[in-house]
Amino acid sequence: MSKPAENTVENSSPLDQLVADLDSDMRAVNALIIERMDSPVKLIPQLASYLIAAGGKRIRPLLTLASTSIYDGDMQRAHRLAAAVEFIHTATLLHDDVVDESEQRRGQDAANLVFGNQASVLVGDFLFSRAFQLMTEDGSIDVLGVLANASAVIAQGEVLQLSTANTLDNGMETYLEIIRSKTAALFAAACEVGPMVSDAPPEHAKALSEYGMCMGIAFQIADDTLDYTADEKSLGKTIGDDFREGKATAPVLLTLEGANTDEREFWDRTLVKNQQNAKDLDHALEIINKYDGFAKSQNLALEYRDRAIQALSAAPDSPFKTHLENLADYVISRSF
Amino acid sequence: MSKPAENTVENSSPLDQLVADLDSDMRAVNALIIERMDSPVKLIPQLASYLIAAGGKRIRPLLTLASTSIYDGDMQRAHRLAAAVEFIHTATLLHDDVVDESEQRRGQDAANLVFGNQASVLVGDFLFSRAFQLMTEDGSIDVLGVLANASAVIAQGEVLQLSTANTLDNGMETYLEIIRSKTAALFAAACEVGPMVSDAPPEHAKALSEYGMCMGIAFQIADDTLDYTADEKSLGKTIGDDFREGKATAPVLLTLEGANTDEREFWDRTLVKNQQNAKDLDHALEIINKYDGFAKSQNLALEYRDRAIQALSAAPDSPFKTHLENLADYVISRSF
Repeated sequence: MSKPAENTVENSSPLDQLVADLDSDMRAVNALIIERMDSPVKLIPQLASYLIAAGGKRIRPLLTLASTSIYDGDMQRAHRLAAAVEFIHTATLLHDDVVDESEQRRGQDAANLVFGNQASVLVGDFLFSRAFQLMTEDGSIDVLGVLANASAVIAQGEVLQLSTANTLDNGMETYLEIIRSKTAALFAAACEVGPMVSDAPPEHAKALSEYGMCMGIAFQIADDTLDYTADEKSLGKTIGDDFREGKATAPVLLTLEGANTDEREFWDRTLVKNQQNAKDLDHALEIINKYDGFAKSQNLALEYRDRAIQALSAAPDSPFKTHLENLADYVISRSF
Repeated sequence: MSKPAENTVENSSPLDQLVADLDSDMRAVNALIIERMDSPVKLIPQLASYLIAAGGKRIRPLLTLASTSIYDGDMQRAHRLAAAVEFIHTATLLHDDVVDESEQRRGQDAANLVFGNQASVLVGDFLFSRAFQLMTEDGSIDVLGVLANASAVIAQGEVLQLSTANTLDNGMETYLEIIRSKTAALFAAACEVGPMVSDAPPEHAKALSEYGMCMGIAFQIADDTLDYTADEKSLGKTIGDDFREGKATAPVLLTLEGANTDEREFWDRTLVKNQQNAKDLDHALEIINKYDGFAKSQNLALEYRDRAIQALSAAPDSPFKTHLENLADYVISRSF
């Protein structure tokens, strides 16, 4: 019986395979995350480790590591930037959960419930600052610019989402703008810095950025679908959050056009006026299914998956390029 | 009758004089602030301009401009960094007011009351990111490091303040650590970047940083005194906020040692257990006055003022050096 190649994981997801191939790098990133979230003010590591230790897929730091690996770049720089990217993401989650009054995150009570909104806001600020300190240590003002821009775009997207909640007037264009900003911009930046720390020509940074952007959009569309369809336990958060918060996402927006008067009134009452009762989520699912809202969302995610893989064609051949291609497919087919 | 020298303001405060001498620079900074707080997401400029248009002393950007002027440095770089410093400060105010559930700021309803906590958190994040974008445009990784470190220290100080609220066990050392972090660190950074953008030797950056740090501590001690003693209308916020929030500041901490059992029980009930009634603020003032708490606070502020002026002695002679010396005196004698 032949021994499987080192780091090959049988029957595992593309994400697992990426993790396996980047095992020592991810250990280095995790060590750096733990080191840099420490502080003499103990509430900071307590709260940060509560969220970080709960897991999460760590897709963003993996993207930075994989993008750097494709170009055989400087992995020490990649570790630092991967940690910075994860800190930006964690800060965003903490603030998001305060804004959304979330109750669950990563299968446990959300940090804002356990530690309070005040601590979540301030520890988020701390992690955000730490991200910029890590980038400063990297020393490249260009890399810093990419991540500073992404941070501003994320915040802008979050405010846009807040401003356009509880309305059905904005449609898919605004929805795509929101997910491009709040989710895909950080995926794009996480990928873009890989070629940058590898001294690859600028068009490669652009191609990887485009991959991250399209993959991030596909990821978020899938996420917004799972918000209605996932198994609560596997997802690690409650189902129907977007519906309860009056956020009109792809599955609803893509079925609005065909909706009859009763159905429009239903969406208006539940999402715009936020008058909901216990049976409304089930009825929302019925209407979405009636107009194939989940299939339409899936098709849109597939389009962005294709664009992501297309963008990657500019990158040199590498097992990590293959991993990223597979990952784009995986993020839209996951059920968690 | 001889004409007064241009930009000289008779009978005005050192702050007014600084503003007059930096008039065209402050106009440039204000224009940059207005330009960079803009966004297609209109809630961002609406909320940001609500707070920024309400005024505020703009001490921090003035410090950057004055520190640069002492060294005849690059004023264009100073404008950008002054705007960045003000954005960091504004972001901090927005998040602070959410954390403290503030009702008043700069003589008007606090932004969190007008626009909601959610918008205040997210627009704060946006302004914070914008600050880092401005620094990226400056292009100096060293300058960026100074401001990124200050941001992390500020957030850490805010968490320390939150963790040590409603206790009397920590004393003056922790209090000084909190105000050094949450207030003085940004004053220090705002001053430190002046010599840096002027290519002055590193010991000058260190001296100006020390000036800003000591001046900031003096400023905050004065501010914490005014929180008990100021005229509400001139201060532009409510009186007794720290007392109501259970924050033991200098006027209380410096009188605790001599307090009798009744008085200790009073502080324990009001600040630790947060059980307060309408007459408690008056009684707090009585106890503080009985033990000369305000005079003791003022003396401590004077010590830091002296240290600030001493640190400045390393800087070359300049009208702006004189302005900064006078400013250190002014911030502890103001009544607003």
